[in-house]
Amino acid sequence: MKLIILKENLNNGLNIISRVAGKNLTLPILNNILLTTEKNFLNLVSTDLELGIKYWSLVKIEKQGSITVPAKILSGFVNLLPNKKLNLEVKNQVLHIDCEQHKTQIKGLDAQDYPIIPTIENQDFIELNTSLFCEGIAQVVDFTAPSQTRPELSGVYLNLQKDRIQLTATDSFRLAEKTLYLKEKINKEYSFILPQKTARELVNILAERKEKIKLYLSPNQVLFEYPMPETTHPQIQIISRLIEGEYPDYQGIIPKKYEAQITLVKNDFLNQVKTASLFSGKSNEIKIKISPKKQGIEILAQNPELGENRSSLDGKINWGESKEMTVNFNYRFLVDGLLNIKSSKVMFELNGEEGPAVLRPMGDASYLYVVMPIKTT
Amino acid sequence: MKLIILKENLNNGLNIISRVAGKNLTLPILNNILLTTEKNFLNLVSTDLELGIKYWSLVKIEKQGSITVPAKILSGFVNLLPNKKLNLEVKNQVLHIDCEQHKTQIKGLDAQDYPIIPTIENQDFIELNTSLFCEGIAQVVDFTAPSQTRPELSGVYLNLQKDRIQLTATDSFRLAEKTLYLKEKINKEYSFILPQKTARELVNILAERKEKIKLYLSPNQVLFEYPMPETTHPQIQIISRLIEGEYPDYQGIIPKKYEAQITLVKNDFLNQVKTASLFSGKSNEIKIKISPKKQGIEILAQNPELGENRSSLDGKINWGESKEMTVNFNYRFLVDGLLNIKSSKVMFELNGEEGPAVLRPMGDASYLYVVMPIKTT
Repeated sequence: MKLIILKENLNNGLNIISRVAGKNLTLPILNNILLTTEKNFLNLVSTDLELGIKYWSLVKIEKQGSITVPAKILSGFVNLLPNKKLNLEVKNQVLHIDCEQHKTQIKGLDAQDYPIIPTIENQDFIELNTSLFCEGIAQVVDFTAPSQTRPELSGVYLNLQKDRIQLTATDSFRLAEKTLYLKEKINKEYSFILPQKTARELVNILAERKEKIKLYLSPNQVLFEYPMPETTHPQIQIISRLIEGEYPDYQGIIPKKYEAQITLVKNDFLNQVKTASLFSGKSNEIKIKISPKKQGIEILAQNPELGENRSSLDGKINWGESKEMTVNFNYRFLVDGLLNIKSSKVMFELNGEEGPAVLRPMGDASYLYVVMPIKTT
Repeated sequence: MKLIILKENLNNGLNIISRVAGKNLTLPILNNILLTTEKNFLNLVSTDLELGIKYWSLVKIEKQGSITVPAKILSGFVNLLPNKKLNLEVKNQVLHIDCEQHKTQIKGLDAQDYPIIPTIENQDFIELNTSLFCEGIAQVVDFTAPSQTRPELSGVYLNLQKDRIQLTATDSFRLAEKTLYLKEKINKEYSFILPQKTARELVNILAERKEKIKLYLSPNQVLFEYPMPETTHPQIQIISRLIEGEYPDYQGIIPKKYEAQITLVKNDFLNQVKTASLFSGKSNEIKIKISPKKQGIEILAQNPELGENRSSLDGKINWGESKEMTVNFNYRFLVDGLLNIKSSKVMFELNGEEGPAVLRPMGDASYLYVVMPIKTT
């Protein structure tokens, strides 16, 4: 392999690729990046065996070839180089990089030993607006279940129906659902569970990119492909295994009505929940109280060691069945939900002391966040 | 105690004071802040028994008094409040804080139980330009010795002579010295060793403040006093114990001549040392090579597992006795020194394979950084 590439181009690719190459002790080659020439492209590849990333740069090839080298040292090193042309050459499993006054040799391993990233044979794809898709993922991705006891809850559920995609995540204490409406209808219906790590990396790598992404699906893999701007050649491919199992039918959990709906200024609500949280102690418990005497909520936190905080926040109440209520919440769950609501006002729907509450951005039906109260036993 | 204070004023004081109140398990009251009224001031106090900080705010006092409350909860809480008037009142060892829609109670401890911060009887003081003093401290404070085997090296040495103050720190691998020239001469000569923590807090709290600080000294304490702008009343007092023992006579370590002096562009040198460092392995060792063939240095790092990096950097060489040299350095020590040099060019003075090297900012004789090579045995 012998080629010339601009530092900035190599650096852009390495920044993306090295997100996956980690400290893998059992299979050291996974700490490496695979560099391969393909016609007039340099292809960079990394994988942790569940998630693979490929990146292509247009370069000046003098001799085809390939090598794998440690991700950490290559990306750390290239990052520090001046923004000039780099000469890359492989000799005897060593990658030589020359750049102005720098002459560097990085020891590599044989490209043959690098694991093969699976490809998807299916030629059908769905095209999506990249930034809207990433924003949607970002609004739910934090709420997957952490444990492996119910693997199907450890990922983000994507449900693709004719004119929409529903993105859902839940850890059974709270549930977030975002609906993306598609401009072009899709023929088939699909649904699959994307590992949380893949979902996070999609957001990290693709958020705010302007071109559309293509989504290719196979029974147990998904491929997201982002094109080189103004070409049809891929620039980035993110290939991930899917989580097996059936996602629970969660629609029954989302309340269809409410006992009281309060419209609040989001930032004030968020701030007062945070203030109360300081007095919540180890239980993280704060109380939300409403009564017909007042248009708004009272927030209360008490702790025998520290003291207490009471605050009130004005807001219009639409009453359902009930007329008075005190509901206990884990303040963290309220904070998490409010941080994912983008509108200036939020609708907070309560369903009694034990029924699920809902946060909804005002004027935007595409997002909802269900949160279970702390049961008072 | 009953008083009215603006949130912002209380917050400013708490931000400074709570730097010292920590998690002290053996003496829990040290996790608290002492609040005391003094005429028409609120005085905030914290201490870890080695370092004490006092802060005064002008407030509207309705009733004199005092209390101590946990630093963490008070500062966390006040920080989140809107910028309005706060009503503070102590009832039965509980601090009540009312602010618009917030009503809060924080449990306190008796002010009588709070340790007394020592005062300095000496009325003599030296007045210093606060920002220059803090900048000088910042240039040396990282280089004190970490261990307690030689306590006198664990602080910053301040040597006050007629028209100058010398600030010195060393961990015996490297030594930094900054000289501050005084506009007004001082009568007596003083010297003392300031604990590293106090030196750091001086920089954190006072850097970039415009008024002058007063320095009061006693045999085992020092007091830095910063005034309320446009008054003579103190706003901040930082009181610290001094480190006992005699600071070593370090002047003999600073080379008086050099075998070669190379003038280099600082940022290029720094960058190339960082690049080489990636290949230095666990020893952190990089080689600096000069020879009469070339005006400049060669930087080399090699590691049998990773590979190697060679780079060259142009620079004018003034030769002393020697004509050729390869000196090994711990790259971290070079990076640390270069980061504290503010000029665009640096003079790098070498004294053979084992002699101390010196980094000096070009055009600024007030700073020097001595670094010992790694011995090649």
